[in-house]
Amino acid sequence: MSDALQGWERRDKPPTLFRRFAFERYAQTRAFLDALSALCDEFGRHPQNINFGTTYVNVTLEAADGQAFAPQDEVFAARISALAEQGE
Amino acid sequence: MSDALQGWERRDKPPTLFRRFAFERYAQTRAFLDALSALCDEFGRHPQNINFGTTYVNVTLEAADGQAFAPQDEVFAARISALAEQGE
Repeated sequence: MSDALQGWERRDKPPTLFRRFAFERYAQTRAFLDALSALCDEFGRHPQNINFGTTYVNVTLEAADGQAFAPQDEVFAARISALAEQGE
Repeated sequence: MSDALQGWERRDKPPTLFRRFAFERYAQTRAFLDALSALCDEFGRHPQNINFGTTYVNVTLEAADGQAFAPQDEVFAARISALAEQGE
């Protein structure tokens, strides 16, 4: 970094992807969450945050390398979306 | 309601209880979430919101009757706390 920033450290946050999944009933929300847990095991990674109530699940993903989204992140996101479609 | 409030409607939010549960590893977080799901089935109710990442779970409960906390709400909260203690 430049001399002008001496004494400062970079604290960049990784880029994130957010999506809200809405469901009609808690049973559907629960099925999605269970499938998402299994998917996390399969990928060996976990969303940065999952925020849910009875009929919604908000998912925040961050780039796996902490810096930029790569094809593997897009695959993970797409697989999560597919789980929600299965439940419809 | 008084005449001064004609045209207005009450939009009270139910009282809520919040607690953050922190864990050292994702496996513990996951075990807590799984146990919490089972507890929700047992009680036939669900927290207003659950917000979790790899090593924390934030739980928000609302009064079951939407108006005031009753002993049943305290039992539900205490049982959730007990789940976290089991995992330690």
